[in-house]
Amino acid sequence: MPQHSSTSASENTVGALIEALPYVQRWAGSTVVVKYGGSAMVSEALSRAVVEDIVLLRAVGVRVVLVHGGGRAVSEMGRRLGLEPRFVDGLRVTDSETMRVAQQVQVGGISRDIVAAVGRRGGRAVGLSGHDLGGWLRAEVRQHTNRQTGAPVDLGRVGDVTGVDAAVLIPLLDAGTVPVVAPVAVDDAYESLNVNADSVATAVAVALSAERLIFLTDVPGIRGPDDEVAPTADVPTLHRWMADGTVHGGMLPKVLGCISALDGGVQAVTVADGTRPHAVLLELLTDAGVGTLLTLG
Amino acid sequence: MPQHSSTSASENTVGALIEALPYVQRWAGSTVVVKYGGSAMVSEALSRAVVEDIVLLRAVGVRVVLVHGGGRAVSEMGRRLGLEPRFVDGLRVTDSETMRVAQQVQVGGISRDIVAAVGRRGGRAVGLSGHDLGGWLRAEVRQHTNRQTGAPVDLGRVGDVTGVDAAVLIPLLDAGTVPVVAPVAVDDAYESLNVNADSVATAVAVALSAERLIFLTDVPGIRGPDDEVAPTADVPTLHRWMADGTVHGGMLPKVLGCISALDGGVQAVTVADGTRPHAVLLELLTDAGVGTLLTLG
Amino acid sequence: MPQHSSTSASENTVGALIEALPYVQRWAGSTVVVKYGGSAMVSEALSRAVVEDIVLLRAVGVRVVLVHGGGRAVSEMGRRLGLEPRFVDGLRVTDSETMRVAQQVQVGGISRDIVAAVGRRGGRAVGLSGHDLGGWLRAEVRQHTNRQTGAPVDLGRVGDVTGVDAAVLIPLLDAGTVPVVAPVAVDDAYESLNVNADSVATAVAVALSAERLIFLTDVPGIRGPDDEVAPTADVPTLHRWMADGTVHGGMLPKVLGCISALDGGVQAVTVADGTRPHAVLLELLTDAGVGTLLTLG
Amino acid sequence: MPQHSSTSASENTVGALIEALPYVQRWAGSTVVVKYGGSAMVSEALSRAVVEDIVLLRAVGVRVVLVHGGGRAVSEMGRRLGLEPRFVDGLRVTDSETMRVAQQVQVGGISRDIVAAVGRRGGRAVGLSGHDLGGWLRAEVRQHTNRQTGAPVDLGRVGDVTGVDAAVLIPLLDAGTVPVVAPVAVDDAYESLNVNADSVATAVAVALSAERLIFLTDVPGIRGPDDEVAPTADVPTLHRWMADGTVHGGMLPKVLGCISALDGGVQAVTVADGTRPHAVLLELLTDAGVGTLLTLG
Amino acid sequence: MPQHSSTSASENTVGALIEALPYVQRWAGSTVVVKYGGSAMVSEALSRAVVEDIVLLRAVGVRVVLVHGGGRAVSEMGRRLGLEPRFVDGLRVTDSETMRVAQQVQVGGISRDIVAAVGRRGGRAVGLSGHDLGGWLRAEVRQHTNRQTGAPVDLGRVGDVTGVDAAVLIPLLDAGTVPVVAPVAVDDAYESLNVNADSVATAVAVALSAERLIFLTDVPGIRGPDDEVAPTADVPTLHRWMADGTVHGGMLPKVLGCISALDGGVQAVTVADGTRPHAVLLELLTDAGVGTLLTLG
Amino acid sequence: MPQHSSTSASENTVGALIEALPYVQRWAGSTVVVKYGGSAMVSEALSRAVVEDIVLLRAVGVRVVLVHGGGRAVSEMGRRLGLEPRFVDGLRVTDSETMRVAQQVQVGGISRDIVAAVGRRGGRAVGLSGHDLGGWLRAEVRQHTNRQTGAPVDLGRVGDVTGVDAAVLIPLLDAGTVPVVAPVAVDDAYESLNVNADSVATAVAVALSAERLIFLTDVPGIRGPDDEVAPTADVPTLHRWMADGTVHGGMLPKVLGCISALDGGVQAVTVADGTRPHAVLLELLTDAGVGTLLTLG
Repeated sequence: MPQHSSTSASENTVGALIEALPYVQRWAGSTVVVKYGGSAMVSEALSRAVVEDIVLLRAVGVRVVLVHGGGRAVSEMGRRLGLEPRFVDGLRVTDSETMRVAQQVQVGGISRDIVAAVGRRGGRAVGLSGHDLGGWLRAEVRQHTNRQTGAPVDLGRVGDVTGVDAAVLIPLLDAGTVPVVAPVAVDDAYESLNVNADSVATAVAVALSAERLIFLTDVPGIRGPDDEVAPTADVPTLHRWMADGTVHGGMLPKVLGCISALDGGVQAVTVADGTRPHAVLLELLTDAGVGTLLTLG
Repeated sequence: MPQHSSTSASENTVGALIEALPYVQRWAGSTVVVKYGGSAMVSEALSRAVVEDIVLLRAVGVRVVLVHGGGRAVSEMGRRLGLEPRFVDGLRVTDSETMRVAQQVQVGGISRDIVAAVGRRGGRAVGLSGHDLGGWLRAEVRQHTNRQTGAPVDLGRVGDVTGVDAAVLIPLLDAGTVPVVAPVAVDDAYESLNVNADSVATAVAVALSAERLIFLTDVPGIRGPDDEVAPTADVPTLHRWMADGTVHGGMLPKVLGCISALDGGVQAVTVADGTRPHAVLLELLTDAGVGTLLTLG
Repeated sequence: MPQHSSTSASENTVGALIEALPYVQRWAGSTVVVKYGGSAMVSEALSRAVVEDIVLLRAVGVRVVLVHGGGRAVSEMGRRLGLEPRFVDGLRVTDSETMRVAQQVQVGGISRDIVAAVGRRGGRAVGLSGHDLGGWLRAEVRQHTNRQTGAPVDLGRVGDVTGVDAAVLIPLLDAGTVPVVAPVAVDDAYESLNVNADSVATAVAVALSAERLIFLTDVPGIRGPDDEVAPTADVPTLHRWMADGTVHGGMLPKVLGCISALDGGVQAVTVADGTRPHAVLLELLTDAGVGTLLTLG
Repeated sequence: MPQHSSTSASENTVGALIEALPYVQRWAGSTVVVKYGGSAMVSEALSRAVVEDIVLLRAVGVRVVLVHGGGRAVSEMGRRLGLEPRFVDGLRVTDSETMRVAQQVQVGGISRDIVAAVGRRGGRAVGLSGHDLGGWLRAEVRQHTNRQTGAPVDLGRVGDVTGVDAAVLIPLLDAGTVPVVAPVAVDDAYESLNVNADSVATAVAVALSAERLIFLTDVPGIRGPDDEVAPTADVPTLHRWMADGTVHGGMLPKVLGCISALDGGVQAVTVADGTRPHAVLLELLTDAGVGTLLTLG
Repeated sequence: MPQHSSTSASENTVGALIEALPYVQRWAGSTVVVKYGGSAMVSEALSRAVVEDIVLLRAVGVRVVLVHGGGRAVSEMGRRLGLEPRFVDGLRVTDSETMRVAQQVQVGGISRDIVAAVGRRGGRAVGLSGHDLGGWLRAEVRQHTNRQTGAPVDLGRVGDVTGVDAAVLIPLLDAGTVPVVAPVAVDDAYESLNVNADSVATAVAVALSAERLIFLTDVPGIRGPDDEVAPTADVPTLHRWMADGTVHGGMLPKVLGCISALDGGVQAVTVADGTRPHAVLLELLTDAGVGTLLTLG
Repeated sequence: MPQHSSTSASENTVGALIEALPYVQRWAGSTVVVKYGGSAMVSEALSRAVVEDIVLLRAVGVRVVLVHGGGRAVSEMGRRLGLEPRFVDGLRVTDSETMRVAQQVQVGGISRDIVAAVGRRGGRAVGLSGHDLGGWLRAEVRQHTNRQTGAPVDLGRVGDVTGVDAAVLIPLLDAGTVPVVAPVAVDDAYESLNVNADSVATAVAVALSAERLIFLTDVPGIRGPDDEVAPTADVPTLHRWMADGTVHGGMLPKVLGCISALDGGVQAVTVADGTRPHAVLLELLTDAGVGTLLTLG
């Protein structure tokens, strides 16, 4: 329990709660998938804020799934173990040993940190990788072809998500538990595959018909033709922006992912500024914009 | 949905929510009975604040019952209908016609206002009197004896609460509905009886084994021997204060009611300052004190 | 418990029960909406019989909703309070004060009487107006236009039913509770509106896909071209009778309501003679006709 | 559906239903075990009346178990098959072949007749013997000793009830099904044993903590010292009557059974006149007495 | 509990269990209907093996219904009772007395034996005929016409299955109970009719959308054009074989029944060699073939 | 699905299943906790056999929890990362970095391997550490005192189990999921602590009131005074053997753990020979002994 605060602070709290009420009512019972990575994972303060947001959302009845990325810890551990990064045709290769290290760091390290932090704030989470619950998150080895030679390139244990067994997540969500998902899937032989965390979040959101998918990114949102962050954009607009080069570079695959989420039945997607503390709550429980809100249009 | 507010206002809201989180977690799933009357009912602003508090508590998973008093509307209507107040041995008598008017005003008027206000804020309430649900709130005619002559005094349709059928309230609470209770009970012949709203609140809180019973009063709390409002008091202390006259006058019956609630299994009772807006939320979701917190000790 | 009766009376009772058995089996688990008003509400004996019918239906497993009208009590109270009936273009206007009085009398008076009577006979009812359960019965202000001038006429707080939230009634019916509905709805601002009880009954029956809707009226049924009460009629017949003037006057809007109920999925509608005691039971649990049975045809 | 009857007949039916209402309410949800044998089983009209009573009780929410006796059909079939009754020390012996015939007649014949009759009246029954549901009705071979010689007498497949698995009956009763129980139990090797139907009814009523156990007998009830049928008697009285010889002969074991039922927690037992049509309904749904009502006292 | 066996026997058991695991997983939660008659019913060892198979299937989560035939016991009992077989136009007639005897032997004898045997092995069964559960198995009198004269032939109480009320079987299966079904149905007047056990099994399997229907027959399977038992056959193949006479004689009606089961939604049907002990388990939990597996193709 | 085997192999399988039936029935619905470590974890064949046992137990309805040890992988990884083992007073110290590595290897490596293997065999598992589900496995830092000096010794992140939240495991077990538990708990600040896997298994078994706790060890069981492995022993015997030195050395703490499990309500504990393949199935589903069975006596 917090220490005694002054009366005006308390009245401030109450006023804020009342202001948040209509938003709480709007989101109660909804499913929200949050992808969390990059800066938000590096900064301890930002991490704590994300966990607080998640726990608060659960406390007001929102069903939350958190998907996290691998972060820098994976490469650090690789370095310490003397694993030399290998490249084929300029592409990084994930050999079995690297996959093993990445898995240990992500599932045994990062996931534990997040799950413990949720507990510390009074919430209840369970860390999951694709191995759990009968292989709930499936992938297949990524087929890559050298663009020049047309020869197949073996990237090792890198996979593309092929399936999410939403049915096994539902009882967890019903029980008020937050699934914390590491970006490690299994293939049909239940062997581990590194998968892209954004793709995992998208696949989970689609499988759960989520009301909202939030990407916590290192940018303030999607910039429109005027180079300003657009508060909203619909799919036709996004297609136009991709066609005319407004959306380009690293934002391109992210936007394609958002579109596939919207096409798959997710009600709306937010490309949010993950460097702002409490971006998730700001987005859902206030009328502040923290990035770009994408809809089917 | 509220209008766009400035960013700092939103961040203020989020900070307040995070601050409230441990309190939200503490009260989720608990049962709270609020007695609401006096000034709080007269002022429109205070009324609105009470309803907002109730709806917000429900939104964060608290099971709430609201018991309201009759207010001035009853006597006003009596005056308009030309009902002459009658007294026997100096005591006001509630004849059948007055009872009828009181019931119409309380159940058909005040209760509707509160229930509608809960709906307007996005909540769900149902107005109840003792007639409902197979006579869930029972009373018997108050036996009164003239202190001098020893002769029985007929006070008419005034009753003392004899029973609460908690079993029929549980499904309502489970469904997220707020029972809004008028202080009108029925006798064994299902005829109406005017009952004291404080007694109704106490009986309901005991029947539901409530975690908290809150009386919204017109005073800032219970004053101790130093004439300051005591932040807390336990039952032995209350007995002492009644014995030495610290507690006296109109506070005496209220304190006796609080003690019987605590004896009956209610975890704690707050005699709260109902003239402060949002006293209920201040009491439950912040660390501000809004009166005196009573415990068994 | 009744007093000892003679043996032959008991055997008579048993014979009657056995005779009613196939009807009991036919209706068990069905939903029946009863509209109750006019003479049936005025006579104490008829009122008691209606309540007995309702309680007995519940006891044999029928899901019953009772919709009542305002009766004479509303106008009496208006008179006592000195409210002058106001007319615009010959139409009665319900100003806010009149609405308030009507609501108090209907919800705080008549509804309580019925709910208590159900309890007295061993049943369980709950009195509802549109304010309850998050505004379950919605209406909008009636738009009226002066036929000659085309100018809009402000009839005050008179409304047309726009929606019934059946989902909130289901748990009540599942629990064996009889909703007793007063003809008071709310608009989108949760302000009260006077609505026609027949329309409420129709809307509720449609929303619940009721097996039967029974109107207890002051007439013996619908008269056919031979001026005899028709035991049955289907919708094509009713259209013919309206076209040729067989159905006319005050029966016209009632028949239109019945047709809209049948079109809306209610299996059958009875325009019953409410001046016969126990008309509801006679209609459902015996083979006696108590009016006209209407079907889609 | 019955044919049209005259109006006055219908009103008679309705009046009877209303008269039965408080009884219906009293018994709804209760468990009643009926033992049915002797004359009631022989007469087709009486049989039909018993089944009608059972089906009607179910229709108004009473949980009913029917235990039937073997009737004359068993000995008739034995005769036809040329089975010679065998006696040891003057006691009838049930050899394996006789047991087999008795079982076929009771389970494959009588039980089917009753179960079909229940279905014909719109009810739902299931015929059970001790073999069903994992051996729900257990017995052990009766140990009999020749009173003069002290030598053990082998009575063959005659057993004493040792256990009832009430847990497997509950889902049937919950589903509105009437268990129709033949007096055939199994021993620990799941071999059949003939058991006394009265003992089965008592054991089932105790295992289900039944509110009422009704024996349909060939006598009008238990006669008191004045040789009149006593309307009621409590256990102390019964003990006195057994001591002074008022209760004697064939009534003795029946009364001992009743006492053990009451001691075992059955609320009341009726020794009813099974030769009166509809004795069960008369006993439960009217105030007519149809025998002697026994209570713990 | 079995006696101590040697270690290698235990290891053998464990190896076998592990080998059966994928089959156990494949069938868990599925519904299997087994028709059991002919030799399998006559031999005590085969009977015991069938019951063991059923109980083991239940223990690993398979939902099983067992349909049994009448066996020789019916005709034996007929002979003992001196019932002369009667023929009309060369067809056997089932008069009412014969029907009664058949019913007693099947329901009161054979069904009891099977149900008891299931209990003896630790399982839970309930014996059913068409009379039970409100007449769950319906039939109508078979209409037969003399092929030469065209005159109707009265075959007595022989019926064709017209309906199965699967809804009443589901709760039994959910509770882990094995319905043991005798081939006795009821007509609309709830009078008994002898029906073909194969037809009952087919109708039950269709009504339950069973994953598998197994006929335990006296032949090793269906022979193909090479006169060898075909391990599998699909419906087009079966039609070809019927057209070219490969399938003929007594196998013809059985194959027609299988086809109608497959058309009705049963996933696969096995015509199994019922003379092999444990044919059911061999078919479902090993990769051994015990007859011909039929699929829609 | 396995390949076709010869018929006699299939009959062998079926015979083994039938032999196992009474054991399957005995354990269905029971809770079994298996502690798995040492040789069983090192050998790939033994590991696979343990997983097969677990999956088969689940398939026949046993509720299984698997607790695994850290194995050699932890120290190997420590070596690779150049973590020098540190000792204080001759006791190994687990500093934070070592704890982190141990956690990553156990939760992110070993646990994943087991969980994936369960999935590969058709089962469903979820890997858990103390962080999950709101900190379901709690411990406190082990207090250690130098025996000579009496000075406190800081062993770092080594803990003693203080609590198991069984309530959060129940829904997993109800859903047929196997919790796979790593020996990593959290303290009240949700920081990781290394705990002894035997103690975790004991605490979990006690919290779930398990029917059986099985320790898969590297020894054939507990040796009695004759130095032969005792097939069974009760607590009084164990106390005697500890007093007279029959039980000594490394077996001492294990036996103390077994006794505390039995005292805590676990029905029986097996100290099993984990070097025998399928020791768990041999113990539970055959009558072979695979170690020493301990009971309260």
